[in-house]
Amino acid sequence: MELAVEGRLAIYFDNDFDLKFVKNPLLIIEEDRIVEIGTYDKIKHNLSGHDVIGDKNHLIIPGLINSHTHLAMTVFRGIVDDIPLKTWLEENIWPLEAKLTEEDVYQGALLGSMESILSGVTTVNSMYWYPEFEAKAISDVGLKGIIAAPVITGITTLEDAIDIVKEHHNSLEETIRVSLALHSPYTVSISDFKAAHKFMKEYNSENPENPEVLIHTHLAESETEIKDSKKFNEKYEIPFPSVKTPVQFLDEIGILDENLMAAHCIHVNNKDINLLKDKRTKISLNPLSNAKLGNHMPPIPEIIKSTRLVGLGTDGPSSNNTLDLFDTIRFLAVYYKGLHHNPTLIKAEEAFRLATIGGAKAIGWEGIGTLEKNSFADIVTINLKKPHLTPNFDDKYLLNHFAYSMKGNDVTNVISNGKIILENSTLLNRDIDITLDEIEKITHRLVSMKSENDSDSALLFQSKLHK
Amino acid sequence: MELAVEGRLAIYFDNDFDLKFVKNPLLIIEEDRIVEIGTYDKIKHNLSGHDVIGDKNHLIIPGLINSHTHLAMTVFRGIVDDIPLKTWLEENIWPLEAKLTEEDVYQGALLGSMESILSGVTTVNSMYWYPEFEAKAISDVGLKGIIAAPVITGITTLEDAIDIVKEHHNSLEETIRVSLALHSPYTVSISDFKAAHKFMKEYNSENPENPEVLIHTHLAESETEIKDSKKFNEKYEIPFPSVKTPVQFLDEIGILDENLMAAHCIHVNNKDINLLKDKRTKISLNPLSNAKLGNHMPPIPEIIKSTRLVGLGTDGPSSNNTLDLFDTIRFLAVYYKGLHHNPTLIKAEEAFRLATIGGAKAIGWEGIGTLEKNSFADIVTINLKKPHLTPNFDDKYLLNHFAYSMKGNDVTNVISNGKIILENSTLLNRDIDITLDEIEKITHRLVSMKSENDSDSALLFQSKLHK
Repeated sequence: MELAVEGRLAIYFDNDFDLKFVKNPLLIIEEDRIVEIGTYDKIKHNLSGHDVIGDKNHLIIPGLINSHTHLAMTVFRGIVDDIPLKTWLEENIWPLEAKLTEEDVYQGALLGSMESILSGVTTVNSMYWYPEFEAKAISDVGLKGIIAAPVITGITTLEDAIDIVKEHHNSLEETIRVSLALHSPYTVSISDFKAAHKFMKEYNSENPENPEVLIHTHLAESETEIKDSKKFNEKYEIPFPSVKTPVQFLDEIGILDENLMAAHCIHVNNKDINLLKDKRTKISLNPLSNAKLGNHMPPIPEIIKSTRLVGLGTDGPSSNNTLDLFDTIRFLAVYYKGLHHNPTLIKAEEAFRLATIGGAKAIGWEGIGTLEKNSFADIVTINLKKPHLTPNFDDKYLLNHFAYSMKGNDVTNVISNGKIILENSTLLNRDIDITLDEIEKITHRLVSMKSENDSDSALLFQSKLHK
Repeated sequence: MELAVEGRLAIYFDNDFDLKFVKNPLLIIEEDRIVEIGTYDKIKHNLSGHDVIGDKNHLIIPGLINSHTHLAMTVFRGIVDDIPLKTWLEENIWPLEAKLTEEDVYQGALLGSMESILSGVTTVNSMYWYPEFEAKAISDVGLKGIIAAPVITGITTLEDAIDIVKEHHNSLEETIRVSLALHSPYTVSISDFKAAHKFMKEYNSENPENPEVLIHTHLAESETEIKDSKKFNEKYEIPFPSVKTPVQFLDEIGILDENLMAAHCIHVNNKDINLLKDKRTKISLNPLSNAKLGNHMPPIPEIIKSTRLVGLGTDGPSSNNTLDLFDTIRFLAVYYKGLHHNPTLIKAEEAFRLATIGGAKAIGWEGIGTLEKNSFADIVTINLKKPHLTPNFDDKYLLNHFAYSMKGNDVTNVISNGKIILENSTLLNRDIDITLDEIEKITHRLVSMKSENDSDSALLFQSKLHK
């Protein structure tokens, strides 16, 4: 039985960034695509043979796009907070990560995927270890995802990453893609950046039937990034160009182009923002995570004025601390108003754009983040009969509610790849309690091990990644 | 049948601001008080005749305190956002407010009260028109509240406010108190401030059996407050003291004392913060609303280092846009980390303190905001079996989850004044759908009227308030 979706109003940006409202909408789905969208009365004659989801109290929006995360890090959520970043990473997260097994990553990503569905996210761009196990988790619950073929010079090799791309890109019924995840300018050598870029270009031109492989990196996240990158390359005796900023560095070595997904973009000046725009680089902004970690904050009002290839990311659930994109949406919409004493900065409509079509552009996945005809049937419905979403009789209140009142758990139904995976806020197909119990066991095991042999962690980490 | 509450862990600050954890807790309630709290095994012999609420997966915390709001403004939620403050107020909110009826305020406050319960708030400090109708709404759903006897010089009289105090303070089974709501230094004359203060002192000393009446005002919210206050008093030919800040102004005229509840405290310098501390003035911080409206932001890290008589407020639901205190808690805990690039600023424990015992101190209500023996039985339980609250096996993760992952709708059960009013996230005693429908009708009527006769609004407003 194919699906159809009805509601009170559908809101989406089309691929030209035009905002569309469809009153009393009906969406007809065939296989994994929206084949019709329009007013109920005009297209109801095509309804026969379709199960109808939603009702007249529902707002319909595209499935949201989480354009940068580390999905499996659910296992580290809330275990340590409120401490300096360096201590958090080096003394807490990294030693624990070193002990992760493939099964841990699968379970962590499974929880992350479930949490994503529950809050209306249908596509995730995740950068983490054991990517094939993240892929399995994402696919098992019916989402789309980009997993990472990780490259950290000295720890993983580009060759291994290339193998992952070749084996997993566009796999699992084309719901899983692979990025070349060159961790950052200060952990990946210039040689690896260039070689990865060369491979990517060749692979993409040799496989025109596939969606393009992209590079995914953390860019301009740290204040000392240029200094650290220079030092890192010196270790490998690689000459470092005379550049002032991380963006200009990647441009100088030929990486800054439309095949780059750059997460964070915090330390960017006006010249950098223009470069990012001119090169059509894809950008993921993660303001809630940046703030929580005590990082500096990206100049988001300036970035989104310059380029539209921008989406939102939650970043990892151990730094945010949730995968609920609505949390990041609201924080984005409010933070900069306060910072600049300007209530007109980052309007509700812009937050909605970044979370939907902007996210799609930011990860280069055509046909998602919108409800246009022929798009993927990745659809979220939200029952508006809620205290914090009232009043709502006037359609023009609904984007305000989206940005300033809604939460992930207002999501009622989620359709992904044409199949219903969340119905009446209940996950279909998976028993979430089993996963919750698994995560408790995993985190318990990891933190118990931690105290015993922290000093070996780096070695252990490397040996496991190379096994 | 009396109630008892069990859970996995109870967390609360006692009245001396010491943080307490009780594992496997049992709380025994008699009438409206907690008569015992301790480990289940130690006090279970006192359980007979009690219905037990909660289970071994539940976190137990005190009912949260919303120390500054305008409860009935739910009727204006999300109708206009993302515009300059002056336009928002003068062209949108005020003309609509002028048309409010008593019944509108009752229904708006009813929705606000329900929304409060659903997100774990058991006491609200609201400043709004037709306070007796807010009181009825708050009481009808079983909460505690402080309502406002409003004074705006030239619009309402102190005499009317005094009548409201005399009639409603400590009413409805002592669940409703009344504040002298002197709107702000720039809308209330020095004479009215002084006369209100004098009345308050006399009333409190003549009624020692009652809880004290307090003054509630917006303080240091606007950058131009001193200039505007001076101008306002000139209108009444009242000499204005030579002072530099709103806090010093209220001190100079004898208002800044422990009977003052000051909301916002944005434009305060170090001298002001010391004054607020020395005078034991009660403070309500509303950072999420401040940011959303594009106000400046209060120096919260400095304020909470100086004084502990500080709580959190949502401010009105038309500016926040919810009454969910968890939204403000998380924003508080994250915003200042980002602003000051310091992840150790405003720790989870501090956010919890402000939302509970701090809020109780900030509104001067003894016996709330804590789970200490003999406190009011205002208790919230939260089922921890949720994706975004996992892992949680270690008790020390739970305050992190409170600040960085929880949302209002994670609240499972709410007990208020010893009675259960939310059970399994469902409101008892009231049909919420009826209220949602009422609000839609009210807002629809108000915005329809608005276009017809905006120019008369100020007059209409005054005449109605004086009828």
